[in-house]
Amino acid sequence: VASFYSLTFLTDYGTEDGFVAACHGVCAKITANARIIDITHLVPPGDIRRGAAVLSQTVPYLPTAVHVAVVDPGVGTARRGIAIATASGSVFVGPDNGLLSWAVEASGGPTAAVSLTNKALWRSQDVPATFHGRDIFMPVAAHLFAGAPLAQAGQRIDPESLTTLPTPHTRITSTGAECEALTRDHFGNIQLSITSQQAESAQLSSGTKIRLRWPNGDLVIPRRRTFGEVPPGNLVLYTDSAGYLALAVNGGNAAERLSISPGTRISCAAGPAEAG
Amino acid sequence: VASFYSLTFLTDYGTEDGFVAACHGVCAKITANARIIDITHLVPPGDIRRGAAVLSQTVPYLPTAVHVAVVDPGVGTARRGIAIATASGSVFVGPDNGLLSWAVEASGGPTAAVSLTNKALWRSQDVPATFHGRDIFMPVAAHLFAGAPLAQAGQRIDPESLTTLPTPHTRITSTGAECEALTRDHFGNIQLSITSQQAESAQLSSGTKIRLRWPNGDLVIPRRRTFGEVPPGNLVLYTDSAGYLALAVNGGNAAERLSISPGTRISCAAGPAEAG
Amino acid sequence: VASFYSLTFLTDYGTEDGFVAACHGVCAKITANARIIDITHLVPPGDIRRGAAVLSQTVPYLPTAVHVAVVDPGVGTARRGIAIATASGSVFVGPDNGLLSWAVEASGGPTAAVSLTNKALWRSQDVPATFHGRDIFMPVAAHLFAGAPLAQAGQRIDPESLTTLPTPHTRITSTGAECEALTRDHFGNIQLSITSQQAESAQLSSGTKIRLRWPNGDLVIPRRRTFGEVPPGNLVLYTDSAGYLALAVNGGNAAERLSISPGTRISCAAGPAEAG
Repeated sequence: VASFYSLTFLTDYGTEDGFVAACHGVCAKITANARIIDITHLVPPGDIRRGAAVLSQTVPYLPTAVHVAVVDPGVGTARRGIAIATASGSVFVGPDNGLLSWAVEASGGPTAAVSLTNKALWRSQDVPATFHGRDIFMPVAAHLFAGAPLAQAGQRIDPESLTTLPTPHTRITSTGAECEALTRDHFGNIQLSITSQQAESAQLSSGTKIRLRWPNGDLVIPRRRTFGEVPPGNLVLYTDSAGYLALAVNGGNAAERLSISPGTRISCAAGPAEAG
Repeated sequence: VASFYSLTFLTDYGTEDGFVAACHGVCAKITANARIIDITHLVPPGDIRRGAAVLSQTVPYLPTAVHVAVVDPGVGTARRGIAIATASGSVFVGPDNGLLSWAVEASGGPTAAVSLTNKALWRSQDVPATFHGRDIFMPVAAHLFAGAPLAQAGQRIDPESLTTLPTPHTRITSTGAECEALTRDHFGNIQLSITSQQAESAQLSSGTKIRLRWPNGDLVIPRRRTFGEVPPGNLVLYTDSAGYLALAVNGGNAAERLSISPGTRISCAAGPAEAG
Repeated sequence: VASFYSLTFLTDYGTEDGFVAACHGVCAKITANARIIDITHLVPPGDIRRGAAVLSQTVPYLPTAVHVAVVDPGVGTARRGIAIATASGSVFVGPDNGLLSWAVEASGGPTAAVSLTNKALWRSQDVPATFHGRDIFMPVAAHLFAGAPLAQAGQRIDPESLTTLPTPHTRITSTGAECEALTRDHFGNIQLSITSQQAESAQLSSGTKIRLRWPNGDLVIPRRRTFGEVPPGNLVLYTDSAGYLALAVNGGNAAERLSISPGTRISCAAGPAEAG
């Protein structure tokens, strides 16, 4: 029997309705012992890619868990509901629309997957078409948390058949990189699709200046360990807490300053040498 | 002795201050075992009707609990604080301003009620005038959760004397319905005051088109099982997760598109036949 | 061995990313039993003073706890990470930038303090420069919650050496007071830096009228027990739930009505006598 420390929950449900609480309640009725860690419920409505980015970058810091994620613009249509066991011992539950794919990789890759066809684990046999988080995903997850084996949730499916999101556009050369803006966070920091290791091989090291060009901009920006190493109000490139290169303004908001949003293509090259 | 799985909490306190946490803390000092499910704290300030709608539509999915709800523009004035036991075994605690009324009905109706006159269950004998959530409602609820009988919280009152909110304007005929917009959710979906059963008797069935008229609009909208059954950007009427007819835009925000807000009167009639 | 009821958490991390959940996860991996009370994560980015005000006004209502607070514009620079034991039995963990200082006072004052130099209690020996909440403060706090003695977290430091925030500008005379706006809350109520006791000695009692003057305004406002004692839409001065004088509009938003923001200097004097 698998053993999970907790159940985690990520959605685009927002926090002003009772949607999240209804799911917590449904879980509590099935298993009294699940500690739920809410990751976020403020994924922009229907933004699968943003949900996938937040989930995959948070999961490495969470205990072994049943992870429920619902960003599901196709709810009630033909897309499958799925549960995926991963090499690290966690299980992911949600819609088969790519939302889970990056996090499943970050969790060691899939070892088994099922389509959620067993209605005995749903909230009821006959559920409405529009709230699968409450009616299918959360009750199935609660049963898995409580000890139900994965195979009980439904029909085995080939992990190769799972929907995956395209990986971000990233091309590393020995003198720079092509990448895209991956996400922006609460502070307005813009995460690029280049890890700090990739940056090293592209000669974009800390302590240097880097030239960024994108459709609406062309700037030379210093790369530093942290924002505090440039004067207040200045732009800086640093390695963010998920290990990616990111753009920030010390004490300010880079996303508001620059016309860059998730998906914007950016080219990076070593800039002019810095004065010692 | 009543036995509750959890304590739930709904307010208009917002999440940027420490108000909600202070209430959690007060509860924790009285009973170490209460699992608190936060329903929402983003009810618009003083909007009793919105609070009542969210509470009543969430409660059916929550375990047997002590439900604390505080949207209380009259705090510190003569309105009573109350606790109400319901037929389903839950207890509701809050101001006697109608906020609890719809949820008490959804929970089976009142079986007993008290006015919170016993200061021994308050946070202290002498509480400030403006934060009854922290100083009266939550400490009383924590004591009830911990096993105090309802009668200990104060003077018995007649459930008939409780303040109730007027029910929404809804009139069903055999060829249509008069209703009002009840709430709008995080996605901008607009919930109407017609249940799907009422819609059936008004000949407003799934698979048909329905003509909606309101002060600033007149539209024919298809009724479907879910948003995904109309093209992206199109309007649709569907049965929402609480069992009400609701207006949505597939992938969009109906409340931003239409000039409809909670309280807007709407007339619904079977529209022209659909091409097969 | 110290014994804590819970762990509390206040940051400026926002709620749309996975930052808060990552910290919860890191804590859960170290100690399975910590109940975390989230105070707020919506402190405006980098606003140490606002974080200090919310923390210090909430702590009196929380159980004995390990309190983790992170508003840390200087993360990754030379400022120390600290843990402070207080006379009331709690421990505060966070950056040494003044954020904790008011709450430490509200918790009885410091009895011992350490600089978080022992990397054995960090998430890993080699942490990134920008997310000390996840990598240093929360794991150290989880170890302290689980029973590690304060001295194990690092090098003992003199509590006198801790960074403190300047106290608000407040001057009480027998005929009035000079003060400043301290914070504004979710409802738009403006808290002044005068406690109700100070107001009494300044002859600014309940039931009187008070004249407020500030750079952009000059108004006479009644002092009452609660908002509901003035007509809807009217301004009122009342004692707020933290014991300070505060400005409100009954059913409205004082901060939007008046051009007062945290830090604005205000002079208060007894106004004209009220008609009996």
